[in-house]
Amino acid sequence: MTGVPMSIPSWTESAPRLIETAMGRTPADSVIRGGKWVNVYSGEIIPNTDIAIAAGRIAYVGPDASHAIGANTKVIEAKGRYMVPGLCDAHMHVESGMVTVTEFARAVIPHGTTSMFIDPHEIANVLGLAGVRLMHDDAASLPINVQVQVPSCVPSAPGLENAGAEFSIRDVTEALGWPQTCGLGEMMNFPGVAMNDPKMIGEIGATQLANKTVGGHFASPDLGLMFHGYVAGGPADDHEGTRKEDPVARIRQGMRAMLRLGSAWYDVAEQIKAVTEDGMDPRNFLLCTDDSHSGTLVNDGHMNRVVRHAIQQGLKPITAIQMATLNTAQHFGMEKDIGSISPGRRADIILTSDLPTLPMELVMAAGEVLAEDGRLTANIPFNDYPEFAKNTVNLGKRLAADDFDIYAPEGAAEVRARVIGVIENQAPTRALEANLSVENGLVSMDAGKDVCQIALVERHRGTGGVVNGFVSGFGYDKPCAVASTVAHDSHHMIVVGTSKEDMAAAANHLGKVGGGITVFSEGKELATVELAIAGLMSEERAEIVAEKAAAMVAAMGTCGCKLNNAYMQHSLLALVVIPEIRISDLGIIDVSKFERVDLFI
Amino acid sequence: MTGVPMSIPSWTESAPRLIETAMGRTPADSVIRGGKWVNVYSGEIIPNTDIAIAAGRIAYVGPDASHAIGANTKVIEAKGRYMVPGLCDAHMHVESGMVTVTEFARAVIPHGTTSMFIDPHEIANVLGLAGVRLMHDDAASLPINVQVQVPSCVPSAPGLENAGAEFSIRDVTEALGWPQTCGLGEMMNFPGVAMNDPKMIGEIGATQLANKTVGGHFASPDLGLMFHGYVAGGPADDHEGTRKEDPVARIRQGMRAMLRLGSAWYDVAEQIKAVTEDGMDPRNFLLCTDDSHSGTLVNDGHMNRVVRHAIQQGLKPITAIQMATLNTAQHFGMEKDIGSISPGRRADIILTSDLPTLPMELVMAAGEVLAEDGRLTANIPFNDYPEFAKNTVNLGKRLAADDFDIYAPEGAAEVRARVIGVIENQAPTRALEANLSVENGLVSMDAGKDVCQIALVERHRGTGGVVNGFVSGFGYDKPCAVASTVAHDSHHMIVVGTSKEDMAAAANHLGKVGGGITVFSEGKELATVELAIAGLMSEERAEIVAEKAAAMVAAMGTCGCKLNNAYMQHSLLALVVIPEIRISDLGIIDVSKFERVDLFI
Repeated sequence: MTGVPMSIPSWTESAPRLIETAMGRTPADSVIRGGKWVNVYSGEIIPNTDIAIAAGRIAYVGPDASHAIGANTKVIEAKGRYMVPGLCDAHMHVESGMVTVTEFARAVIPHGTTSMFIDPHEIANVLGLAGVRLMHDDAASLPINVQVQVPSCVPSAPGLENAGAEFSIRDVTEALGWPQTCGLGEMMNFPGVAMNDPKMIGEIGATQLANKTVGGHFASPDLGLMFHGYVAGGPADDHEGTRKEDPVARIRQGMRAMLRLGSAWYDVAEQIKAVTEDGMDPRNFLLCTDDSHSGTLVNDGHMNRVVRHAIQQGLKPITAIQMATLNTAQHFGMEKDIGSISPGRRADIILTSDLPTLPMELVMAAGEVLAEDGRLTANIPFNDYPEFAKNTVNLGKRLAADDFDIYAPEGAAEVRARVIGVIENQAPTRALEANLSVENGLVSMDAGKDVCQIALVERHRGTGGVVNGFVSGFGYDKPCAVASTVAHDSHHMIVVGTSKEDMAAAANHLGKVGGGITVFSEGKELATVELAIAGLMSEERAEIVAEKAAAMVAAMGTCGCKLNNAYMQHSLLALVVIPEIRISDLGIIDVSKFERVDLFI
Repeated sequence: MTGVPMSIPSWTESAPRLIETAMGRTPADSVIRGGKWVNVYSGEIIPNTDIAIAAGRIAYVGPDASHAIGANTKVIEAKGRYMVPGLCDAHMHVESGMVTVTEFARAVIPHGTTSMFIDPHEIANVLGLAGVRLMHDDAASLPINVQVQVPSCVPSAPGLENAGAEFSIRDVTEALGWPQTCGLGEMMNFPGVAMNDPKMIGEIGATQLANKTVGGHFASPDLGLMFHGYVAGGPADDHEGTRKEDPVARIRQGMRAMLRLGSAWYDVAEQIKAVTEDGMDPRNFLLCTDDSHSGTLVNDGHMNRVVRHAIQQGLKPITAIQMATLNTAQHFGMEKDIGSISPGRRADIILTSDLPTLPMELVMAAGEVLAEDGRLTANIPFNDYPEFAKNTVNLGKRLAADDFDIYAPEGAAEVRARVIGVIENQAPTRALEANLSVENGLVSMDAGKDVCQIALVERHRGTGGVVNGFVSGFGYDKPCAVASTVAHDSHHMIVVGTSKEDMAAAANHLGKVGGGITVFSEGKELATVELAIAGLMSEERAEIVAEKAAAMVAAMGTCGCKLNNAYMQHSLLALVVIPEIRISDLGIIDVSKFERVDLFI
């Protein structure tokens, strides 16, 4: 384990040292000798190249750096391997990995990621600006480059939900002034932009004035007037495309298209055809992950997985690498610092013996070797999060089974109820209906027909509020409950169950451990992923979180749920910006109409 | 003649209006209908496209803008013509045209230039920061986008010459804070950067801190250590390349290569082979003119001439256009404002019916039609320059023929003298020697062997200083003199002649008219180009200046000079940064050794 410098001086500060080293008057700190230079500026691969590094930055790249080697210079023999710029993730949420920023970095550095553009949208909805600042400061402590996009839509759906915080234009402006913020996080309120909502326009304007990048998110297949109105407002990129025509439309309008390969997003293969089949100029395509689960990070990879996949779709390796390096650096106005192996830039360098498969044989960031052969070798200490970031699950009371009682309308023997219909592998839900019987004035769920209960438990302000409803599609066939404080985007608690007793027990358990995801059956805890930080992130290592998440998925299976990735469906059931029907702390929401509706019809 | 708005609000300020127009809720100011969209982001040409314009910016680009047409919307029918982004000149000196910034703009707008990145290096050497500010303010008044690069090397060769001004790091920093400066002008002192000269490093650092672009100028074929040392210092571009390997070397190092086609520079054809023959990624190539004479502007064109030429060398038209639009905009961090036909950007648009030949049928800037069919149609008023910018030729006395007497060493009957050897069509000179006879203690020139006199007349501080020497190569065979206050880079006065009486008369004439270039023979004024502003620029129209310059060249021919472009050679004879031998106000300079030498050997 080697120590790692937490930050390095700017090119401006280091220029005299870099010049001295380039000229051979002062020895380099380290030299990488005899590699193939993957040159993202020229689009070439140049053999027999040396790199001299000083003060964490590249001082010299050329055919022979022997003049820069002194007695104390560390020499790394590339032995003809490819020297690739460290990979950049153009848009992602750390919270999706359910680990801290530092732990996320520890997990992805061995995969060659040396820059991440993160939008801490989830913690913002729980802890507000203070939460974003925690993520920012965690990011700033790292030996890799992690830039923060300031969340733009907190809450996501004003009027349809109460989150744990609300951002004003002033909040956004303040955060844009922090040293490691790079712009505005995905502007999801695309109807708001197209309708000239003053708050959305104000946030975009504050970002443009700060000369930072406005992240976009146009999650609609419509490429008509609303799309054009959105573009005129200023968002500079979009990662929500899925069809080949989506990046085409965006890039033609002067935006950049981010193609996404996350744990559950497979949006590269179709969109990249705009380049591989139609010959579009690739310079405005970027690659990103958006959401990666800890299991993906531990078992599959991160940006190396995306680049590899893009090459498999028929892209030239150098083009795919440009999409994960220089293109991203230019998009965020950072090409003087990252995105290429060129003088002045941070020495973020990967050694690999094969481009299509990208084995990560050595990963260097800011001139320090951080990982070798897929294993982290540097000591990157954990940053303790302060107490206010923990114990954020404030239920206001101990829940009992009768908190989940659903009263029928006076005198009814049967009701017709709205039911949220889960669709496997998709974010949208279906607005279903079901006839349910009434006993002793209470509506009964119907587990036999896969209609069980869902509750949104208020957990930010201790109001004791519980909104009850029905959900179908999970297939639970035992007495059980699953509760989660990851509940996009307001991150209250969602409890789904066939047993009110288990629902209460699961909810209370999460209240006790400070949040997470838990599965209970017949009063017994089957599995729990504790997420102590904001109820969203664990304090443990990614491997442990991945194991606990796997156990949690298995426990859901034990209870009868056979859906692929059911936990993701669970955590999205309060996402009141995606149709058709959801639950919020204010009630049942018809997302097609953006209005609250009664549970009974 | 239509009136023209002097500046337009930012995208941020105009976003609400742009959205309203894009959505069809507020009519556009103008709409261009039915053109072929030359899309520099996607690299495509897209037929049947409409553009809606509001507040000087593009609100909508797409298949149908009829929803944005109101009763007062001006509709321009493209009739299937190409709609090309206005062209950008990535690096140039207005002074080379010997006209003001406004007049330069009036000359080049009909050629489709809507953005210029100008380095007012010449006026800086005469009038210092105040002169640069005059150019800046003239630029800021224009309906096209003219950005100022702050001159970096004033004087060009400290210790070898005194210019009219000297810039400190503080001066450069001050100018970088003005609204329309985009970076540092060409950093010519490449040995200084490689040697870590604190002033050069300080200027570069100030520019990086201001988040602006550091212009480069590495005028040496050496691609060894000095080149690498220079790159490590931070310059971001270079326009001094001439061979195919020059842009290759620069782009590989993370710089951008500017390929130059000026009045006397022909550096595109050879360098562009890196793209057309070797397949290098073209995204980091830019086009520029550097120096255009008024005759070129009037008769041949400006950036349209460069783009046309680049296409003739085998580039795809879209690629050549990218090099004069988007690539330049990205280099200067201005892609949100210029360089493409995309929403939010300034409506700088050319209509042309053919890409390879680029006839300029309509030129619009910031939404206003400024020129049609190669003729300026807008009224762009002349900005008066203040008195301090005129009458800058301060000789301190009336010169007489004997000011040009060259005394031989005591008792010599003959001397061996150093002679500056002019090389046709090239900037370097040859260090020649000649045996010259002595009469009455004075050395005689030898017009028969084409050795005539040259004098550097101090003209900034009225010291009365005259440095005399010899020059060969112009071929003057009559009694005559040619004097010029354009005398790179210090811009004293250079007088070359075969007659001392004519030398005195020519010098005094320039003193009287406030500077310029004049040709005298046997006491008679044959031709004069008056350059009242700083002795560098005329107050007249480019057509008039071009005519006067042509008459001046003809007059030089009458006096026996058959060199191509001899006036350029004349004006470069005091450029003490280009080998081999030059003249300055301090004496004869051996530029190979960077030291002063005696006239006699």
